[in-house]
Amino acid sequence: MPLPAKPTMFANLPEPPYYSVIFSSLRSNADAAASATGYGQMADRMLELAATQPGYLGVESARGADGFGITVSYWESLESIAAWKAQAEHRVAQERGKREWYADYQLRIAKVEMAYGKR
Amino acid sequence: MPLPAKPTMFANLPEPPYYSVIFSSLRSNADAAASATGYGQMADRMLELAATQPGYLGVESARGADGFGITVSYWESLESIAAWKAQAEHRVAQERGKREWYADYQLRIAKVEMAYGKR
Repeated sequence: MPLPAKPTMFANLPEPPYYSVIFSSLRSNADAAASATGYGQMADRMLELAATQPGYLGVESARGADGFGITVSYWESLESIAAWKAQAEHRVAQERGKREWYADYQLRIAKVEMAYGKR
Repeated sequence: MPLPAKPTMFANLPEPPYYSVIFSSLRSNADAAASATGYGQMADRMLELAATQPGYLGVESARGADGFGITVSYWESLESIAAWKAQAEHRVAQERGKREWYADYQLRIAKVEMAYGKR
């Protein structure tokens, strides 16, 4: 299994406002059995590629043993989110995700208005 | 281990706009070793209790084997989020969470403006 591309768990974000993409997904069983390697490589590559896009602020991600996961990426603006959605390599990954890797997913775009943490 | 309170993985939500609370958290190691039972019971009880609050729309949650998790709850308004934060039993859980169960957490309140899924 390749090492995860993200060096930290918590995203280090500026003060709000900024935008978030909440991506909830359920991995497909067929893929888990057949070609989990392709998925891990794609996921790592997309994290790496997203981090180079204009307006990218950070990402946080968790997936349970049941195959259900939530990835939240953070962006400066709706324009930067639209540009990332249209990015060529990302579009290929989106298509493969829809076809092979995800039994289902939901994507929600939300404007972060307030943020606070433990510290 | 008690059965999870949530019957489905994906929240069944109305059309935007509505609000989300993105809660990212890292479980504390001390607790994982000592009293994981208390945490699971609290987490289930909070899901159950949240679902009875005015303005509650749904919740999605995932936690990986590394202890990092993301729970996103969805609400009709900022007012319903504020009321849930101030709810008495929830306040007790928040304090225990801060003191015992979470090594760290971040909470972000965001207005969902767009949503779409696979289907």
